[in-house]
Amino acid sequence: MAKDKKLVEAITSMEEDFAQWYTDVVKKAELVDYSSVKGCMIIKPAGFAIWENIRNELDRRFKETGVENVYMPVFIPESLLQKEKDHVEGFAPEVAWVTKGGLSELTEPLCVRPTSETLFCDFYKNDIQSYRDLPKVYNQWCSVVRWEKETRPFLRSREFLWQEGHTAHATKEEAHERTIQMLNLYADFCEEYLAMPVVRGQKTDKEKFAGADATYTIEAMMHDGKALQSGTSHDFGDGFAKSFEIQYTDNENKLKYVYQTSWGMTTRLIGAIIMVHGDDSGLVLPPRVAPTQLMIVPIRQDKDGVLDKAMELKGKLSLLCRVKVDDSDKSPGWKFAEQEMRGIPLRLEVGPKDIENSQCVLVRRDTGEKMTVAFDELEDKVPELLEQIQNDMFERAKAHRDKHIYDAHDYDEFCDIVVNKPGFIRGMWCGDKACEDKIKEDTTATSRCIPFEDNEVISDKCVCCGKPAKKLIYWGKAY
Amino acid sequence: MAKDKKLVEAITSMEEDFAQWYTDVVKKAELVDYSSVKGCMIIKPAGFAIWENIRNELDRRFKETGVENVYMPVFIPESLLQKEKDHVEGFAPEVAWVTKGGLSELTEPLCVRPTSETLFCDFYKNDIQSYRDLPKVYNQWCSVVRWEKETRPFLRSREFLWQEGHTAHATKEEAHERTIQMLNLYADFCEEYLAMPVVRGQKTDKEKFAGADATYTIEAMMHDGKALQSGTSHDFGDGFAKSFEIQYTDNENKLKYVYQTSWGMTTRLIGAIIMVHGDDSGLVLPPRVAPTQLMIVPIRQDKDGVLDKAMELKGKLSLLCRVKVDDSDKSPGWKFAEQEMRGIPLRLEVGPKDIENSQCVLVRRDTGEKMTVAFDELEDKVPELLEQIQNDMFERAKAHRDKHIYDAHDYDEFCDIVVNKPGFIRGMWCGDKACEDKIKEDTTATSRCIPFEDNEVISDKCVCCGKPAKKLIYWGKAY
Repeated sequence: MAKDKKLVEAITSMEEDFAQWYTDVVKKAELVDYSSVKGCMIIKPAGFAIWENIRNELDRRFKETGVENVYMPVFIPESLLQKEKDHVEGFAPEVAWVTKGGLSELTEPLCVRPTSETLFCDFYKNDIQSYRDLPKVYNQWCSVVRWEKETRPFLRSREFLWQEGHTAHATKEEAHERTIQMLNLYADFCEEYLAMPVVRGQKTDKEKFAGADATYTIEAMMHDGKALQSGTSHDFGDGFAKSFEIQYTDNENKLKYVYQTSWGMTTRLIGAIIMVHGDDSGLVLPPRVAPTQLMIVPIRQDKDGVLDKAMELKGKLSLLCRVKVDDSDKSPGWKFAEQEMRGIPLRLEVGPKDIENSQCVLVRRDTGEKMTVAFDELEDKVPELLEQIQNDMFERAKAHRDKHIYDAHDYDEFCDIVVNKPGFIRGMWCGDKACEDKIKEDTTATSRCIPFEDNEVISDKCVCCGKPAKKLIYWGKAY
Repeated sequence: MAKDKKLVEAITSMEEDFAQWYTDVVKKAELVDYSSVKGCMIIKPAGFAIWENIRNELDRRFKETGVENVYMPVFIPESLLQKEKDHVEGFAPEVAWVTKGGLSELTEPLCVRPTSETLFCDFYKNDIQSYRDLPKVYNQWCSVVRWEKETRPFLRSREFLWQEGHTAHATKEEAHERTIQMLNLYADFCEEYLAMPVVRGQKTDKEKFAGADATYTIEAMMHDGKALQSGTSHDFGDGFAKSFEIQYTDNENKLKYVYQTSWGMTTRLIGAIIMVHGDDSGLVLPPRVAPTQLMIVPIRQDKDGVLDKAMELKGKLSLLCRVKVDDSDKSPGWKFAEQEMRGIPLRLEVGPKDIENSQCVLVRRDTGEKMTVAFDELEDKVPELLEQIQNDMFERAKAHRDKHIYDAHDYDEFCDIVVNKPGFIRGMWCGDKACEDKIKEDTTATSRCIPFEDNEVISDKCVCCGKPAKKLIYWGKAY
């Protein structure tokens, strides 16, 4: 029995050390491994299968809105990266440079793409001629490189996987509409598929993307109260178009600049799933994103008929959910601990006695709840439970988040909350960057967003400087 | 009418200049565009949608055999690349080197992966401990970089997309079995899904992969008679395991080396589809891989009811195939030419007169055959025709290939065939690399493979040196 517990006991508890708990989970749930390339991660099968589900579902939702996938080069010539002033300032300090190809030095260094705005602009410049060529609603799934100093699996690494959408439109309004449409698509995806509630809003100028007119964001709260920026959508106006000379002829034969957007989501989302739903037994996956939704664990599998029954149930249930049988030679206790560590939403236990009674035991990963279910009720009960778990996980995460949103009316209160109450802080803001800078320096909290769905005026004064306030901001420490 | 023909007229004919015809097709069918990064291509939506279908179908077939997907870093430290002697010699001359990260020089250069054997080995070294950890049957979908001097879209570019499978096994036999299993999977995929017949065989030592014990290949014949290596599967024996110290403890507690394989297919396959099936009107896509299988072109779409009917037919047929309506403001003739250029397997024409008679016209892309079909027969006829086209395309490609395989009994005959009869040459070989070298130097033809399914002895003498022959080889000029 001691041996059976080993997997679980090896995890640090969340309360004790959240960062260490996170590291333990990504490693013990076999999501990633470290590589001999500093700051780059190896995504193992259990981690990659989650990413595949995220990718497939997002891609399906993208395509419903008319998105087409393309593939751009992994390299950007230095001169191209430099075409948009703010953009190069934002990215140049953190890119990797290729200076040698084959056996010779390159005449111009190439950077490994940190993001592909410049490549898409360079392409659109030639590809877009007439209003008939618009809109372009392109996306690519790829890896990008950013030379980060401090790295953590999924949350911040020198290479990560993502999708980047890049669109071009005839009008400012249409570009803005697409920016918001994609932000809402991201938010719905997080809430419906990852059971992860998010706050939708706009970034302040200080926090917006290098080169954007406006950046929109969805912010999720992790279990420790910190914010995780989970997806962003940028409205570029015609800024990039002017730098890159992307013009089209309208239907009155006039030359006009296009309006552009870009939007992205990354493997960070896997980190978010871990930190929103995980517990001291490991990962807890929402059923929709879980690569395996139900693990069947045979009890006394050496006994005649037990494995056969497990396989028979698998056959029947595989039409209704993603199901596996753990028929390895480990003990049932060990298998339970593994299934819990890996976050598989449901466990089905079946042994000789159960078979005699034509029943089995179902155990929920999220609550630990056990229930005895007759074999002939399984095909109703399993899908129903998976749906229930998905909904309950969302509601629990939302309740946890809402409980950890605090209002600050002045700076003392703000600083007190930052120190003593991990979570989001609602506080008014004068609109001055100096206040954001001060708050960040004093407390490490940053402005997460100006929320869309919350414009309550909780005070008429800026929470930092006391001058007249313009906007409500959600503040918080962030990953 | 002249305007309608423009798209088609702009293509060079295959007979006149096959290379230019190819370039015209990839450009006019909007599969790729050139980028400002020399030697790297932009894969446009029409090209990427083909790759998505290839990827999804291959991935499905992989997973049926137990393959799990992972993701390895894009970079390989120089010291890691050098661990296997033959491997580094094969790849070092053609890799791109990152020497700067962020603002500082790297202490060790990183190469952008040209292939990931070394990364997988480095990972397996730690991940594999016991026989219980075997086999590992991992794969990744990614891009790789090889610093080629001469590049052509899909066929040879500095960056391309591919999958690379990397497996580790307890025994030599099991590794060999997996090598052959994947080669057969590739061959079946090409024949069943791409309607492209292939010759399965083994590479000679001269042509095998850097570091492999044995390389297996599938070779397809392009319309111009040249060979295209379309997929390879490598048996590494325990060579990499010994260089990287990948050992496991067997069930008698003895330390043993693992046996490994790797296998890959790339975006080259899109080039193969073009060159096997294309014609002077452009691309011809086999229905299974075609992103759009049926294009509905309304005739006189300004007339009441025509567009409605087109949409109604689309709705009905979309359950049976991938169908679109071209309701743009171009003329029908222009739409026909576009649909042909893009290789869409079937066209449905429907106009006011057809509607009166409750019928429409179907046109096959591969043969140009037109047929009148009653509306209420469409749901039977369309899937039947798509199936028929798929089969006919395979049979035609096979007949073309078989007609262009020639036997050479001595060197004069060999040289005569190389010059005058484009295709594969069957010729006996003594087993000596010097003969392969001479043939390549004299004729530019190379040994494509020692075929699995053809061991006829067409002579007892080597086709080059006249000494006693050991094996039948398929020779040919190659892409």
